[in-house]
Amino acid sequence: MKIVSGGVCAAKGFLAAGMHCGIRKNKSKKDLALIYSQCPANAAAVYTTNLVKGAPLGVTKANLSDGKAQAVICNSGNANTCNADGVAVAREMCALAAQALNISPQDVVVASTGVIGLPLSPEPIAQSIGALAEQLSPAGSTAACEAIMTTDTYPKEFALAFSLGGKTCHIGGIAKGSGMIHPNMATMLVFLTTDVAISTAMLQKALSGDIQNTFNMLSVDGDTSTNDMAVLLANGMAGNPEITQEGEDFTAFMKALNTVNVHLCRSLAGDGEGATKLLECAVTGAADPATAKTVAKSVICSSLTKAAMFGADANWGRVLCAIGYSGAAVDVDRISVSFRSAAGVIPVCENGAGIPFSEELAKQILLEKEIEILVDLGSGEAAATAWGCDLTYDYVKINGDYRT
Amino acid sequence: MKIVSGGVCAAKGFLAAGMHCGIRKNKSKKDLALIYSQCPANAAAVYTTNLVKGAPLGVTKANLSDGKAQAVICNSGNANTCNADGVAVAREMCALAAQALNISPQDVVVASTGVIGLPLSPEPIAQSIGALAEQLSPAGSTAACEAIMTTDTYPKEFALAFSLGGKTCHIGGIAKGSGMIHPNMATMLVFLTTDVAISTAMLQKALSGDIQNTFNMLSVDGDTSTNDMAVLLANGMAGNPEITQEGEDFTAFMKALNTVNVHLCRSLAGDGEGATKLLECAVTGAADPATAKTVAKSVICSSLTKAAMFGADANWGRVLCAIGYSGAAVDVDRISVSFRSAAGVIPVCENGAGIPFSEELAKQILLEKEIEILVDLGSGEAAATAWGCDLTYDYVKINGDYRT
Repeated sequence: MKIVSGGVCAAKGFLAAGMHCGIRKNKSKKDLALIYSQCPANAAAVYTTNLVKGAPLGVTKANLSDGKAQAVICNSGNANTCNADGVAVAREMCALAAQALNISPQDVVVASTGVIGLPLSPEPIAQSIGALAEQLSPAGSTAACEAIMTTDTYPKEFALAFSLGGKTCHIGGIAKGSGMIHPNMATMLVFLTTDVAISTAMLQKALSGDIQNTFNMLSVDGDTSTNDMAVLLANGMAGNPEITQEGEDFTAFMKALNTVNVHLCRSLAGDGEGATKLLECAVTGAADPATAKTVAKSVICSSLTKAAMFGADANWGRVLCAIGYSGAAVDVDRISVSFRSAAGVIPVCENGAGIPFSEELAKQILLEKEIEILVDLGSGEAAATAWGCDLTYDYVKINGDYRT
Repeated sequence: MKIVSGGVCAAKGFLAAGMHCGIRKNKSKKDLALIYSQCPANAAAVYTTNLVKGAPLGVTKANLSDGKAQAVICNSGNANTCNADGVAVAREMCALAAQALNISPQDVVVASTGVIGLPLSPEPIAQSIGALAEQLSPAGSTAACEAIMTTDTYPKEFALAFSLGGKTCHIGGIAKGSGMIHPNMATMLVFLTTDVAISTAMLQKALSGDIQNTFNMLSVDGDTSTNDMAVLLANGMAGNPEITQEGEDFTAFMKALNTVNVHLCRSLAGDGEGATKLLECAVTGAADPATAKTVAKSVICSSLTKAAMFGADANWGRVLCAIGYSGAAVDVDRISVSFRSAAGVIPVCENGAGIPFSEELAKQILLEKEIEILVDLGSGEAAATAWGCDLTYDYVKINGDYRT
């Protein structure tokens, strides 16, 4: 596997573009993205579990019922959620994209992100979609990624090249997140593309399986959004023998997909709203994988732990506390905790009790930008990792007056 | 029912005191509290559900196994949790209090609150317990309450007089909270006293029942503490016919207990770490009580909603979002949301969709200190209320460097 440039356009036959069409007032912010595959692609998707769902989700789900798609249209600045005309507007967005690309509206994935409950006018999209389609290019990934950003401070894109059946294949993607990211599927927008030939069933299996260990292990603020989804399009243009069952090729594809998704997860966590640090909680020694996941997520979601990390305070009691209320059956007297970063590693708790440590070294370690919280439950072989960020003044600032 | 002064000493025969003994470095902060009943009392308690439990909890639980207690000793500044010698120190605290009061160590309730994982020396307690016992007085409630405070900015005490079987009875208490308060029992320290004559079994029934609608519906930051408990002592000195079963007297007692606990809940929520506002989420129209509770708690716990309230931003989409991911089975299209405060009431969402409203009036309403978020699920008759606070810069500041 080799990291390559190109993001969502790294895979053969994918083009993208992003522009400002007028949904946002600020003209310097792009607000409309288009992704296009030069041939119809197999498509898989996962959606938020929130009962309050953005109108685009239902429209996308219906369009993907045949397992095929050829384009993605996505706006930022307005979530098109909790609006009486939401479904009609989402359908209109598909129709507009389809017309500009000369494809069927049923082959369009539609997504929106932004404020909830404000009617979205399709007017600016109608006026700009032609120009946007003309801008489609293999170099358009970053522009498309910028156009789906909300409070994100940088675009998230990543791609890999790898080999399958003697053919060079690619997989890549773009993602947006920042606030409202919490384990429960697709709690952000992720658009992934690959030129691998793979059946829709195996594509869905790969995506549904991988998100359990990646996007579902990511939390910024514990709030699960109404609009988020991850979509994976595979157009087969790499020319490899089609993957239709488990085996060596499927395993290689899963590995590439996981590498892309872990990278995007870390980018999303590190750019959590107001975040100054990426937190990674790696749990080992668990009796089973469910316990490992529950514990890792509980630590990453603890407001008190997140605030302590912001203050570079080695307050391991808060980590233990979060393990204790996680709901997982753990033996407290076997738990060990260490903090690790580029500046070193420091054990702070053994067998459920504090041990003497250098506050000075702990501070040095916790002042780094990427912190690992290492938890050993001492009760088995299972492991899990969760990603999150610290809780900062800026989180409050960003969310104290987002809407007006 | 009549509100009276006296807090935890309002009930006949209860004395209290609080002082600085030296557990905290800051000499202006009290750190040791003592509560004493002039005769043995029936005792009920509820404890944190966190698997990581402070050593004092186990010792208190053992001491209350006979349903009797006569005193409470509690320190702040150190939680006596995750220390190898924790149980021995908690027992030593009971022995010291018992010796000073000339009672059995088994009749002492012990509690600690503060930093986790720092060994607690009983030395300062041993040196001060005699002086503290001498300070016991019917006017000692506020001093005791101050001595159990951690990041609390004001003491929480409340008491009522009411009539039972022709006798004037009292019930009152003190509480501390601030951070680490989240539904799951006794996620704070609450010491309640009453002069009502009631059997231990009925006392426990009353307390266990009431906290489901009071302290378990309270959240500051979603973190469930390791040390918290609520204890209720009843010494029978009011001389009413002893309550030994359900009936009119028990109902009257439950009502008084609930009034005290709701008052303490509101005080705790309004003084959440860094809070500038008390938030109350009142859910009506639920299909059943469990749904109402789940929805109310989810709204109160949403970081995004909490931050919006701090910014006086009528971002009702975040309320709807929190309802949607609560896990409760609700019909989104029947949900209505309003905001209410001393400045008025404003409906913002009907049938799951936004309605036009005056941003100016909404701002005025949300700039008040106490905000009600009114949610009507439109699906039944059940209701529930949860209490919390806004998420502010100061929450981050207080918790970014609490320990060092």
